[in-house]
Amino acid sequence: MHGVVGKIVARPGQREAVIKVLEDRPREVPGCLSYVVARDVDDGSAVWVTEIWKSPAVHATSLRSPGAREMVDRLRPLVATVERVATTHILSGAPEG
Amino acid sequence: MHGVVGKIVARPGQREAVIKVLEDRPREVPGCLSYVVARDVDDGSAVWVTEIWKSPAVHATSLRSPGAREMVDRLRPLVATVERVATTHILSGAPEG
Repeated sequence: MHGVVGKIVARPGQREAVIKVLEDRPREVPGCLSYVVARDVDDGSAVWVTEIWKSPAVHATSLRSPGAREMVDRLRPLVATVERVATTHILSGAPEG
Repeated sequence: MHGVVGKIVARPGQREAVIKVLEDRPREVPGCLSYVVARDVDDGSAVWVTEIWKSPAVHATSLRSPGAREMVDRLRPLVATVERVATTHILSGAPEG
């Protein structure tokens, strides 16, 4: 299984707007086993997204989906940076899927 | 819900030993909703642990448990650094618990 650890830094005052866009995401996405959105408790502009996908290919395909493209378009004016902190191979603890 | 994003950097040649210790962890831990262990695909010495707990207090209590202490003791000679990359408040996507 394929993992992504992502950190989004919102533009000043835009973190809640970023979260709103992320929360509007399609929830049933083929091959997506986990998509966790979390607010950094120490950095008032940061949002963390940790994802688990069935495979790198499934994840790559999802990025080309209309839902993902719309999310990226909506996020673009709200974010300072979007950083892929790590790409991983999941060893244990993922939800069954 | 309380989230932790952690990065362990193993000493040279010790990543698989670090993973073994993490995989030996107790799996049913009260208040732990998710504990994902993953190998960084780009950094050959890094292991990522992303955790979701019912609350900060439940997490703090777990760190004092015999199981957690034993894991830390076993990891100590194997690791170069253990970094808490982020402490978070989970907004969505956590397993029910």
